[in-house]
Amino acid sequence: MTRYNKDHFQESPPDVLGVSSWRHADPPILIGKSPSRIERWALHTLLALLGNPAIQFVLWNGERLPNSNSKRCKRLHIHDRHTLWRLVVNPDLYFGDAYTQGSIEVEGDLVSFLETLYRSVPQADQQDPFAKLFWQWLNRARPNTAGESRSNIHHHYNLGNDFFQLWLDEEMVYTCAYFPTPALSLELAQRAKMDYVSRKLRLQPGETVIEAGCGWGALARHMAKHYGVKVRAFNLSHEQVRFARERAAAEGLSGHIEYIEDDYRNITGHCDAFVSVGMLEHVGREHYQSLGGLINRCLAPQGRGLIHSIARDQPYPMNAWIERRIFPGSYPPTLREMMDIFEPCGFSVLDVENLRLHYARTLEHWLARFDAQQDLVRDRFDDNFVRAWRLYLAGSLAGFTTGWLQLFQVLFTRSGQNNIAWTRDHLYVNRT
Amino acid sequence: MTRYNKDHFQESPPDVLGVSSWRHADPPILIGKSPSRIERWALHTLLALLGNPAIQFVLWNGERLPNSNSKRCKRLHIHDRHTLWRLVVNPDLYFGDAYTQGSIEVEGDLVSFLETLYRSVPQADQQDPFAKLFWQWLNRARPNTAGESRSNIHHHYNLGNDFFQLWLDEEMVYTCAYFPTPALSLELAQRAKMDYVSRKLRLQPGETVIEAGCGWGALARHMAKHYGVKVRAFNLSHEQVRFARERAAAEGLSGHIEYIEDDYRNITGHCDAFVSVGMLEHVGREHYQSLGGLINRCLAPQGRGLIHSIARDQPYPMNAWIERRIFPGSYPPTLREMMDIFEPCGFSVLDVENLRLHYARTLEHWLARFDAQQDLVRDRFDDNFVRAWRLYLAGSLAGFTTGWLQLFQVLFTRSGQNNIAWTRDHLYVNRT
Repeated sequence: MTRYNKDHFQESPPDVLGVSSWRHADPPILIGKSPSRIERWALHTLLALLGNPAIQFVLWNGERLPNSNSKRCKRLHIHDRHTLWRLVVNPDLYFGDAYTQGSIEVEGDLVSFLETLYRSVPQADQQDPFAKLFWQWLNRARPNTAGESRSNIHHHYNLGNDFFQLWLDEEMVYTCAYFPTPALSLELAQRAKMDYVSRKLRLQPGETVIEAGCGWGALARHMAKHYGVKVRAFNLSHEQVRFARERAAAEGLSGHIEYIEDDYRNITGHCDAFVSVGMLEHVGREHYQSLGGLINRCLAPQGRGLIHSIARDQPYPMNAWIERRIFPGSYPPTLREMMDIFEPCGFSVLDVENLRLHYARTLEHWLARFDAQQDLVRDRFDDNFVRAWRLYLAGSLAGFTTGWLQLFQVLFTRSGQNNIAWTRDHLYVNRT
Repeated sequence: MTRYNKDHFQESPPDVLGVSSWRHADPPILIGKSPSRIERWALHTLLALLGNPAIQFVLWNGERLPNSNSKRCKRLHIHDRHTLWRLVVNPDLYFGDAYTQGSIEVEGDLVSFLETLYRSVPQADQQDPFAKLFWQWLNRARPNTAGESRSNIHHHYNLGNDFFQLWLDEEMVYTCAYFPTPALSLELAQRAKMDYVSRKLRLQPGETVIEAGCGWGALARHMAKHYGVKVRAFNLSHEQVRFARERAAAEGLSGHIEYIEDDYRNITGHCDAFVSVGMLEHVGREHYQSLGGLINRCLAPQGRGLIHSIARDQPYPMNAWIERRIFPGSYPPTLREMMDIFEPCGFSVLDVENLRLHYARTLEHWLARFDAQQDLVRDRFDDNFVRAWRLYLAGSLAGFTTGWLQLFQVLFTRSGQNNIAWTRDHLYVNRT
């Protein structure tokens, strides 16, 4: 296991604007306790860029900007002028860094603050095209070559299984759950999701499944145990594969599941069903077509495939801070972009379901469990880690409730393959 | 009503290869009763281009090509050498024309002959790119400017309501039905489809609906009668609108439905639900983004939309004969192309369902009913018309069973709109 490194959330991205030199000294022309006119102007400009959300800045000298007494306003405290300038220069990235370091603070509920922000920011189609291009370049995702992928995945998933065990469900499912009713427990909803995916794929006893990106291996275990299939499950994270193998052995499933510590690009062999839940976000757009080619080589003539991924309504990079500090190389595609997987090989899309609000509900559970375990997390890591992780969970939750993020499950098969479900009734009727 | 014109299926497309001059005289170098070596070579080349289907040509002199005794072979009789050359030059277009004129004949079942053909033709991604480009240019769709659209729609839908009444269901629904079980009657399946669409849209009493391309108005009547909504339904076909208004008046629904004889481009006003079933095929790719803009102007903040369209797994023009003789200007888009409607305005796709096999089943019903009424159709039109219409229905059926055609229902809403169905249970559970 990798030891947690204090710099995990503080490593510097390319400092294209030379802001880092301002960290320990005031910007030369802006000395003084009160904010300067330029600083006030910069904050107003930032608010305008963000679509003028009902947000008020509380500055280091107690001054409020804009000067309003509205009770609807959410308040963000900015503790020093260095932070102000970093926020103004690249809010997407430095909001997260400043929050992590405690140099900004949000008054009240973090999720509803972020929702206010997300609901206000103009959608991609309404943004100034030059500003958009610049931000997209500034916040471009890291590449996902085979080597980079290993390091990107390592960054997140090797924080320690015991850390994730603190706030995930007992099966350690780290993807969107499916809640047949919103009040279901997280445990049951994750089980319902695994069953839903298995039903969509119409698994039959004795069939073979390839899973790309298997996390801690819960879906493979569910399919082997409840559907009698043989699963070959791939994952780059050493920690997760070790856990998955131990769990499968303890449940007597080792003969039915092969967990393989390898890149999805090295998948070979054939299967009746190909499934990937929550990996596409890490694949990178430029690799979708070759992922499609890989599935095309693996899938039996009557095979079915399912890809489950965080997505967007319009193309837009992953939030820069998430991409730099939490999930390097991640990118949520649009449905149009996902078609790069299916269309060139002539796969036929059977069913697309958007489970956006189910991911919001899943994240509510994770955030509540994480908050309940904050002391343990702080003991193991530090305050910065706790703040960063809270921001990541709260930000993702706000992303799904406000529609900045989507969750698509895409079911597909080979073109002209007629051994498909006649209707979708079987997913809903006579459910066990 | 337009009178049927004998040339309906015989008007000449641009004769880019000068083939028309061969119609009434043998091509100069190819005189004689037996097929020449060049003709044999041309037929072998044609078969190779078609992926070498198990098809045998029976020529005017009784000769069989290829010379095989396989019982699996489907047989196509070619009655003269003019027809042979027209087939070789542009099979997509002239197969239909020759079949209509009786200068080719299919031995046995027409649908299974066409299925054999479709299953053999290489998918778009496996075709020679230059040949593909040339064919696509040769078979390009007619434009869909406002004027052209009126003439294109007129061409098909104004053949006379009594003609369509011979073989459609009693509500005159001329789009893919939904069969909860395959054995359901066409009448019940069309009703089930209208109900399914209404449920997907979650219509509430008192809401307003805009329907683009309403056919004979059945869906508008169903929604008004069973869901208590007010519908404004648009259609370019004078014949259809007249029928729809009379039917609505007879059912006492005139106060709830306004049938408007106009182009979808002229739709104005606001609605809680926007629905279009079987119109997108006639819109033309270049107009998808403006259709999206139109929906964006009409739809209420919490509005829902549904677009139901014939589609493809990979981009490919509509079969040239269908596009020229049956549905001028038609084009079945891919799901990626359909995203031109949704993505630029930031609509959020909630649900995509592929009902391909339901359209195949619908077409089986239509073809059987049409066949039962052949004598009446022949009396009213002529033999050529009967053959053309049979080919169109049988070809569409084979298109859906073999996967050359798809049928997508896409449900969408505004981005970040949270008043959406929690699951899809409501479509399947407690169905009345």
